[in-house]
Amino acid sequence: MGMVEKKKIIIDTDPGVDDAMAIFVALRSPEVEVIGLTTIFGNVYTTLATRNALHLLEFAERTDIPVAEGSHVTINKTTKLRIADFVHGADGLGNQNFPSPKGRQIDQSAPAFLVEQANLNPGKVTLVALGPLTNIALAIQLDPEFSKKIGQIVVLGGAFLVNGNVNPAAEANIFGDPEAADMVFTSGADVLAVGLNVTHQVLLTDADRDTLAQSGRKFGQYMSKILGFYYSYHHDSYGVQGVYLHDPTTLLAAVNPSLLTYTEGVVRVQTTGIMRGLTMFHNSNRRFEELTEWSNKPIVKVAVTVDAAAVVKLVMERLMNS
Amino acid sequence: MGMVEKKKIIIDTDPGVDDAMAIFVALRSPEVEVIGLTTIFGNVYTTLATRNALHLLEFAERTDIPVAEGSHVTINKTTKLRIADFVHGADGLGNQNFPSPKGRQIDQSAPAFLVEQANLNPGKVTLVALGPLTNIALAIQLDPEFSKKIGQIVVLGGAFLVNGNVNPAAEANIFGDPEAADMVFTSGADVLAVGLNVTHQVLLTDADRDTLAQSGRKFGQYMSKILGFYYSYHHDSYGVQGVYLHDPTTLLAAVNPSLLTYTEGVVRVQTTGIMRGLTMFHNSNRRFEELTEWSNKPIVKVAVTVDAAAVVKLVMERLMNS
Repeated sequence: MGMVEKKKIIIDTDPGVDDAMAIFVALRSPEVEVIGLTTIFGNVYTTLATRNALHLLEFAERTDIPVAEGSHVTINKTTKLRIADFVHGADGLGNQNFPSPKGRQIDQSAPAFLVEQANLNPGKVTLVALGPLTNIALAIQLDPEFSKKIGQIVVLGGAFLVNGNVNPAAEANIFGDPEAADMVFTSGADVLAVGLNVTHQVLLTDADRDTLAQSGRKFGQYMSKILGFYYSYHHDSYGVQGVYLHDPTTLLAAVNPSLLTYTEGVVRVQTTGIMRGLTMFHNSNRRFEELTEWSNKPIVKVAVTVDAAAVVKLVMERLMNS
Repeated sequence: MGMVEKKKIIIDTDPGVDDAMAIFVALRSPEVEVIGLTTIFGNVYTTLATRNALHLLEFAERTDIPVAEGSHVTINKTTKLRIADFVHGADGLGNQNFPSPKGRQIDQSAPAFLVEQANLNPGKVTLVALGPLTNIALAIQLDPEFSKKIGQIVVLGGAFLVNGNVNPAAEANIFGDPEAADMVFTSGADVLAVGLNVTHQVLLTDADRDTLAQSGRKFGQYMSKILGFYYSYHHDSYGVQGVYLHDPTTLLAAVNPSLLTYTEGVVRVQTTGIMRGLTMFHNSNRRFEELTEWSNKPIVKVAVTVDAAAVVKLVMERLMNS
């Protein structure tokens, strides 16, 4: 046993097929210790996200990890939720009709759990946010110091200088709660945003899925099963022979930052009109004649390139290493 | 004398240092016949734009070309105008204190003139729009058939997958009247948009300006003089040793389309919030689960690449060919 401290990770998640994969990869990654899951709407409603999070931990025999249920509504409480059941199936896990989990969530809300953990381990917790950013914005509202006490927030979200996936302007997680996203990006926290410009480079092929199915390994076979619906959506909607690994890529960015390169600047989110949910990055090199809504705002990191082959290789290895 | 018909061009303009250059290049281009100038606010207020347009035609000894004055306000009449005198000088022409022009504009308004010319030469007029798109939107309101009767509208405007120049989201001409711009882009007209992603590739260097100054040629020397202020702005604000040829590039795109390549798709303009004036292109290859604000809208062309060296060479030649 070495003395290297494992990186403590909380995954804020809306499972979701690729969320399940990211959670499994995290649990099979020796570099990190998953200290909790928090749940949010997005791929499914929040109650189902909680159920799925409990189910996934039971399947992985890791019921020692607490699940804290997050917000059922957006930060402004009025936005109609957009639930991506057409991507992940009505149950969020490829329509597999898994039995109900035996365990239940902790009594603490997700934002309260996030604040508590940040205070217990100041600067040491990496929060991997795989859904809309409502819980994180609520944690910031709950504790103004949260953005400084949390170690890093690795966000799956945004579409930087590329089209979105909800519509040409917006990526799904940011579209899910644009006001919350703008709060998180301008909070002063150490944020790394992993957007569609990066995750659309990481494709798990049909052949990779066959390898998982034939692996005889527990996690590989489980993922192969629930991936069916997700593959069909990608075939039909994108015309690609594979699926994008949005969540696993973002998780691995937290586990091993050297898999990506990033740039630094200010990110703002459009909250009104036809481009609601659009993320706009500015690198501060160009000064404008007038003050802008990007002026004097905190700097965040935005992923630019990814070693896609290395990400896919790591995902495959870790889903088949036991 | 060959029998090749010259392309009829109307330039909608807010002169403006690079507008002056574009107008001179047009007048010195044997491929086209400038059949009118229409004026608009932007680099200067509309009244000064009219004065400058008349002055430039008098300097070029082309007072046979009519000038029609355009709108003094945005299409919704309520937006505060943003006048870029810090780029072009208080007089719009590099603070040279030219004498007042002797001539005056025609009695017709710019939108009425545009509609009349489109009806006189259906499908044969190329409209080169170098400022905010208010006059063009008003022409569409005046005559619902205008967008079909006008030949092509070549627009200097937008920032496609790059930051803007007013702020990180918006380019100046679209920011000047976003509602008008959205009307023009979705009007069904044959629109070619030349955005910052293209015009920022076309740089007239300090050495090029020296060549103009030493040319002993009327237009070269005039441009060299008024370019001083514009160069200073570029040095200070962009840190480049030269100036961007926004307007001349757009004019030459109308004269010789083979100088650019373009892609096709739908362009919408954000009209509210912090990203007001942002242009978002979508190429229609990706279908979305839900109908979007881009669905079933008319297709336009968006310039992607430009032969920058050829544009600069043509500009220099035509400013020094007499």
